[in-house]
Amino acid sequence: MMNKSPEHIRRITCIGSGPIGGGWAAHFLAQGYQVTSYLHDASEHEALMRLLETAWASLETIGLADGASMDNFSWTCDLEEATVNCEFIQESVPEILELKQGLYQRLGDIVDPQVVIASSTSGLSMTDIQINCATPERTVVAHPFNPPYLLPLVEMIGGKKTSAACIDWTERFYKVAGKAPLVMKKEIPGFIATRLQEAIWREALHMVANGEATVEQIDQAVVNGPGPRWALMGPCEIFHVGGGEGGMAYCLDQFGPALKLPWTRLVAPELTSELRNAMVDGCIEMTNGEDFASLSKKMNAGLVEIAKMKLNQQLS
Amino acid sequence: MMNKSPEHIRRITCIGSGPIGGGWAAHFLAQGYQVTSYLHDASEHEALMRLLETAWASLETIGLADGASMDNFSWTCDLEEATVNCEFIQESVPEILELKQGLYQRLGDIVDPQVVIASSTSGLSMTDIQINCATPERTVVAHPFNPPYLLPLVEMIGGKKTSAACIDWTERFYKVAGKAPLVMKKEIPGFIATRLQEAIWREALHMVANGEATVEQIDQAVVNGPGPRWALMGPCEIFHVGGGEGGMAYCLDQFGPALKLPWTRLVAPELTSELRNAMVDGCIEMTNGEDFASLSKKMNAGLVEIAKMKLNQQLS
Repeated sequence: MMNKSPEHIRRITCIGSGPIGGGWAAHFLAQGYQVTSYLHDASEHEALMRLLETAWASLETIGLADGASMDNFSWTCDLEEATVNCEFIQESVPEILELKQGLYQRLGDIVDPQVVIASSTSGLSMTDIQINCATPERTVVAHPFNPPYLLPLVEMIGGKKTSAACIDWTERFYKVAGKAPLVMKKEIPGFIATRLQEAIWREALHMVANGEATVEQIDQAVVNGPGPRWALMGPCEIFHVGGGEGGMAYCLDQFGPALKLPWTRLVAPELTSELRNAMVDGCIEMTNGEDFASLSKKMNAGLVEIAKMKLNQQLS
Repeated sequence: MMNKSPEHIRRITCIGSGPIGGGWAAHFLAQGYQVTSYLHDASEHEALMRLLETAWASLETIGLADGASMDNFSWTCDLEEATVNCEFIQESVPEILELKQGLYQRLGDIVDPQVVIASSTSGLSMTDIQINCATPERTVVAHPFNPPYLLPLVEMIGGKKTSAACIDWTERFYKVAGKAPLVMKKEIPGFIATRLQEAIWREALHMVANGEATVEQIDQAVVNGPGPRWALMGPCEIFHVGGGEGGMAYCLDQFGPALKLPWTRLVAPELTSELRNAMVDGCIEMTNGEDFASLSKKMNAGLVEIAKMKLNQQLS
């Protein structure tokens, strides 16, 4: 509730019980919250419990928060019962605009306007979803990565009527709740992570379509090549480290012309001096100016762990 | 040596002592081989030894092969001395075509024609490199990922004069030597892994250029979102698992239309039924028909390990 500090939130309602809605419930339970799931139909209960049990085994291995327990879970098919006294709502119903619009209209009327309603939508805009909601200021898109209890990313963006206070409060709340929120600067289709994922995917499809690589070769290339690095560092920091002492500046000044090469079917942007500087400054800022030796040491330590992990998996 | 089984190779020469050449030397040493590095100039010796020491610390953590020792390392600035009695050559000199052409001409004359000469080149074609070599049949491109002692990928392709026997022998040799070789079906610029990496990179540059995301947001989106999955599974298997029981077939039939959406600036290929079936069959083949429950269990187990690893890094 926006009139409460994010640290004091205790009761969360998850609307929807599919892999995303159920995954959110598992995450919040492991963080020690009281969680109520709203199910569209009681027949969904069994699958949801199976999902929670699977998730719980993983979450116990990673480590539960103090007081976290499956005893803090309840469910109902009554929307008013599900939302009474709740302090935060994570909505994950199917991606049908009319369905979400109707739901937000109802929630807008029955839920305390201080309670944030966050939508897991990956493709709809909050401007559209909140159109019939009487209290739209507290509605915001908060798109997770699947499974939400293992991958921390939450991409956030408001609709036209969402208040800045709501976005700010929700960002702080997710940090308290063990997530990695990312407030988008502009609304773009696919947000950030899905666009990057889609770029790889399309290039992979092109290669298969042209007989340049098999499905298995594409996957092996990723898993045995750049994949383990991406678990540890993003594409920008990887090039920042790849540039050695010279960092991103060296990379761009040296390999900038490679953007003209036909590597991928994606036409590269013009490497203007503005873009060059934005990349260089961004890397230095992001890494707090940490030097090459320290960054590469960190990267190698992580790769060693991943290599050990894979070795253990093969042996087991 | 192609007249020896790959299992019986013991003496390897690494030509070049930069991060790639030195990284290869570290890898082969950790696998128990006798390694001789050829240095262009004795002044490179100090940096090479530093690189080997750093690498060795990582390699000891992962686990050394029986008999592996830094005592098996030697170096020289004399090319004949470096290659006499060697049984495999990994060449990693700078990416200058004339330089490589001259080197392969000389190696072609002084090295036993049964010895494979593999080039770490990321951008030159073996057809061009081998042009003045008198014994080109045994020369092949074998492009590693950096650092070669932590990332197993080696992308292989021959030149016009490379023999099929050489490619086959070298692929088997790398498997024995603890690498993950991938023989390309066609020569395409950037091979497979770099093309996929470049697709992400270009989309990232577009986002920064358009003010849609900051450098840090791009990296956080990858590391907290799809990144950890890519350490464990490639993009095809991820969608195969993402499709639930229905696998890749469900994914393509359901989300195929999303290829028309402006997610990334990369124009998607037409999803013909041939391409659809190639993707579906490829996934089933690659995973040996393993079912959703088993694949997703494996994926989650890996993500749990990565989450634990990151937690430990934060605490340390």
